[in-house]
Amino acid sequence: MAKGITKRSQDYSRWYLDIVAAADMAEHSSVKGCMVIKPTGYALWEQIQRRLDDMFKETGHVNAYFPLFIPESYLKKEAEHVEGFAPECAVVTHGGGKKLEEPLVVRPTSETIIWSTYQKWIQSYRDLPILINQWANVVRWEMRTRLFLRTTEFLWQEGHTAHATHEEAEKETRLMLDVYRRFAEEYMAIPVWTGVKTDSEKFAGALHTYCIEAMMQDRKALQAGTSHNLGQNFAKAFDVKFQNEQGDLEYVYATSWGVSTRLIGAIIMTHSDDNGLVIPPRLAPLKVVLVPIWRDEEQQKKVVERAQKLTENWKSHISFKVDDRDQYRPGYKFNEWEKKGVPIRLELGPRDLENNSVVAVRRDTGEKITLSQDGLLDNLTDLLEEIQTNLYERALELRNKGTFIEDDFDTFKKKIEDPGGFFWVHWCGKTDCETVFQETSKATIRLVPLDGEKQNGQCMVCGQPSNERVLVAKAY
Amino acid sequence: MAKGITKRSQDYSRWYLDIVAAADMAEHSSVKGCMVIKPTGYALWEQIQRRLDDMFKETGHVNAYFPLFIPESYLKKEAEHVEGFAPECAVVTHGGGKKLEEPLVVRPTSETIIWSTYQKWIQSYRDLPILINQWANVVRWEMRTRLFLRTTEFLWQEGHTAHATHEEAEKETRLMLDVYRRFAEEYMAIPVWTGVKTDSEKFAGALHTYCIEAMMQDRKALQAGTSHNLGQNFAKAFDVKFQNEQGDLEYVYATSWGVSTRLIGAIIMTHSDDNGLVIPPRLAPLKVVLVPIWRDEEQQKKVVERAQKLTENWKSHISFKVDDRDQYRPGYKFNEWEKKGVPIRLELGPRDLENNSVVAVRRDTGEKITLSQDGLLDNLTDLLEEIQTNLYERALELRNKGTFIEDDFDTFKKKIEDPGGFFWVHWCGKTDCETVFQETSKATIRLVPLDGEKQNGQCMVCGQPSNERVLVAKAY
Repeated sequence: MAKGITKRSQDYSRWYLDIVAAADMAEHSSVKGCMVIKPTGYALWEQIQRRLDDMFKETGHVNAYFPLFIPESYLKKEAEHVEGFAPECAVVTHGGGKKLEEPLVVRPTSETIIWSTYQKWIQSYRDLPILINQWANVVRWEMRTRLFLRTTEFLWQEGHTAHATHEEAEKETRLMLDVYRRFAEEYMAIPVWTGVKTDSEKFAGALHTYCIEAMMQDRKALQAGTSHNLGQNFAKAFDVKFQNEQGDLEYVYATSWGVSTRLIGAIIMTHSDDNGLVIPPRLAPLKVVLVPIWRDEEQQKKVVERAQKLTENWKSHISFKVDDRDQYRPGYKFNEWEKKGVPIRLELGPRDLENNSVVAVRRDTGEKITLSQDGLLDNLTDLLEEIQTNLYERALELRNKGTFIEDDFDTFKKKIEDPGGFFWVHWCGKTDCETVFQETSKATIRLVPLDGEKQNGQCMVCGQPSNERVLVAKAY
Repeated sequence: MAKGITKRSQDYSRWYLDIVAAADMAEHSSVKGCMVIKPTGYALWEQIQRRLDDMFKETGHVNAYFPLFIPESYLKKEAEHVEGFAPECAVVTHGGGKKLEEPLVVRPTSETIIWSTYQKWIQSYRDLPILINQWANVVRWEMRTRLFLRTTEFLWQEGHTAHATHEEAEKETRLMLDVYRRFAEEYMAIPVWTGVKTDSEKFAGALHTYCIEAMMQDRKALQAGTSHNLGQNFAKAFDVKFQNEQGDLEYVYATSWGVSTRLIGAIIMTHSDDNGLVIPPRLAPLKVVLVPIWRDEEQQKKVVERAQKLTENWKSHISFKVDDRDQYRPGYKFNEWEKKGVPIRLELGPRDLENNSVVAVRRDTGEKITLSQDGLLDNLTDLLEEIQTNLYERALELRNKGTFIEDDFDTFKKKIEDPGGFFWVHWCGKTDCETVFQETSKATIRLVPLDGEKQNGQCMVCGQPSNERVLVAKAY
C-alpha cells in the first residue's frame, strides 16, 4: 500500500480522492466547484475523446460548435427543460461593461441553442437527418462537488440529431446507447447494464432516456452515459417543421446523447487499488515504462544504452517511456508509475543484459514475468490485451458478486446497507412506489432493462403485479 | 464565377462572407457576436488542431484544462492586464439561483487563473519548467464582429509556461513563435513575417509580444499568432516564487502563446477565389472527390463500380469521397466541391473506363489533367503536394507584389490607400510617431522584424534617426 493513499476498506470515498491526488490527475481550483484537470488526467481524457470521436464518425456523425451562451428566454421555451436546468444555471448579466438587455445562461446543455439553429437549417426531409456532435464545456451549479464525478464546470460531448420520423430517432437513440456500451466494455473495461430511466429520472425534456450503468468497487452505481429520445418536444418549442415526402408539414424528431469527464471517475473507481491508479491499456496514455537499473556509472551506461536500443523502433507502435532519470532510485520510480497506473513496467538490470531478458510487471496483478528481449514488442502488445481482458473480467466478477435478486422489501432495506450492491426487484411502475424505494433506502431505480426477461411478480413495495424486474442501487 | 459569390474585385469584404456561406463553414448565432461553426468549418479546425497539437507535443508540451470562470479580483492583480481585458469581459453575477458574493469573469484569456494555480505547483527549480497548453473557448465582448476573424466567443489554444530564468522563457517564446511560423508556412501555405510588437500593440501584461503577420489578398495584414514573454509580471501578481539552484527565492518567469479559429479566416482570405473556398491540401479534411459520370443506368452501374474498385484501398492513405449521389447532375456536384475547396476533383466517365484513365481537376488552377488509373493514388499524393507548394508560392508572389519600401510620408499616405500593401518604413521608436501613422493612415506598425537588416535612415514621421525599418500596414 502506497504512502498517502487511504485503503479502500477503510474509507472508499477518501481513497478515491487520494488516488486522484496520487496520480496527479486533478485538483479543486479557487473557483468554487470548478476543477483543474492536470496533464495526467487530461491525457486520459484525450484518449477517451480520440476513441469516442472515431466511433461517432464511424456511425456517420460530424462535429460542429455552438455558442457557450444561451438567451434566458430560450431555456424557458421547453417547460420541463427549464424546470430541470434553471436552478443549476450560471447567468451572465453584464458584457462589455454594460448590463445586458437579456441575461445569458452559460450552457448547462445545448438543446435549446442548437434547436434554435436547426430551425434555420431544416425545411424539407432532404435536410434530414442532421447528425452532429459537439465537444464542449458545460456548467451546472453544484453545491456538493467531487473531482470528475460532479463539478460545476465539466467537459463533455453532446450529440444532437434531427430526424424525419420517430422510428429513425428511436433507432439513433439506441445506436448511440450501444456505442456507449461498447466503449465502456471494450475500452474502459467496465461491464455495464443498459436500460431506460423511469420518468422521474429521465432527462428534462425527453420522451425517454436510455443509460448505461456501471458498478463501482463500493457497489454503488454510476451512470456513465445517457442517450435521449427527445421526440418532437424541442421541435415544437422552437417551431422546427419540415415538409415530409408526402408534402405535409411535420415537426422534426430529435435525439441527444452525452458522456463527460465523469468517465474518468468511473475508470478510477472500477479498476484502481490501494497502490494507486489502474488504467485499462487501451486507454492508457502511457502503456509501458522501462526502468533501467544500475549500481554504478559503468552499468548505467550499458543498461541505458540497451534500453534505448531495445525501444528504438517502438515509437510508431506503442506509447512508452524510458525512465532513465539520474536523481531517483528505481524503487521511487516503480512507486511513481504504479501510482499513475501505467499498465506494464519493465525492469532492465545488468543481469538482464547477460541473459537477454527483461522483467515485466503487470499493474493489474503485480505479477512479474521474465521475457526475452527478442520479440519483446509483440509480447508486450499481447500482454496489454491480456491485462485489458483481465480488468474487464475482474470488474464483471465483482459486479456479479454484488448483484442480487430480491423480493422482500425488509431484506432489501437491510442488504442495500450491507453488503450493498445492485438489486433486481419487481416494481409496479408507479412513481409512488419509486419514491418509497428512494426515501426508505436512499437507493434509486437505475434502469428498466432493455429486452429484459419478462417474469411475473409483485411490486416489492405495494404488492401490485409486475412483469419484469428493474435495477435498484445507491448511486453516485 | 459561382452563383451567390460576390467577386473579390467588386467587394472583398462581401466576397469573404459569401465564401464562408457558400462553403457552409459558419453563421452568426442568435446570441450577439457568437458564431455557430458548422461541420465543414469545424472539420478544418479539427485539422488545424491535430497538426498544431502534434507540434506542441513534439516540442515537449502537454495539455491540461483550467476553469472557464475567473474571480474578478484575479483579473485585477496585474495592472496592465486588467486595463486591457476588463472592458471586454462577460460577467457572471448569479449562480444556482443566487447572487454571487464575487462576480466571475468568463475567461478572455487564462493567465490569471493559471498563475493562481501555478502558485500551488511551484516551490523549487525542480518543479520547472512547466510546459502546458490548453484548448479552450474564450470570450471577449466585441461590438463589430466578423465570422472567424472577430467574434465574442472563439476557440483557441493558449500555452502557459513557467521557467527558472529569463533566458529560458525568452527561448520558449521564440520557439513557439517559430512553431507558429512553420505551421503557417508548411500547413496553411501562408508566408508570414515574424517580429516583435511595439509597446502599444503588445499583450496586456507582457514584457514583449512576438507575432506572425500575413498578407491577405486585399493586401491587408492579419495577425495570425502571438507569443508573449511575460517576464515576472504574473509571478509577481500571484506571488509565485521558487527556490533556485543557489537556494535563493526568485519570481518565476512566464510565457504565453496562442492561435485561434481566426486562422480559418486567414486560410479563406489568402487562398480562395471567386469560385469559392480553396483549402491547402495538408489541412483539407477532404482531399479528393471522385465524381462518376453517366448517361444511363447501365453506364451508372459500370462507372460507380469502377470508382469503388479504384478507391477500395485508399481509406488508410487519403481522405476521399466518391460522390455517387443519384439526385444531382455532375455539374451540380462539380460546383459544390469547388465551392467547398476540395483540392482535387476526379471525373470518371464511360470513356475513361475504356481508356483506363481518369480526369483530375486542380482546385488551385482549374487545370485538367488526364491520369492513368494505374498508380493513381501515388500520382494524387504528388499532385496534392504540388498544389500545396503552388498555393504557398502564389501567396508569396502576391505578398511580394504588395510590399514596398517607402521613405516619404506623403507618398506613403497615398500608396497605403491605393494600391495598399505592406510598407517597410523607418521609425524612430517613439509612440508619438506611431500614433501619427495610425491617425493619418489607419495603418499600424505590425512588427519590428526579428534579426532585421540594420540600416540607417530617418523616421518617416519626425525625421529623427532610425536604424531599421518596421512593417506598416492596415490590418484586420
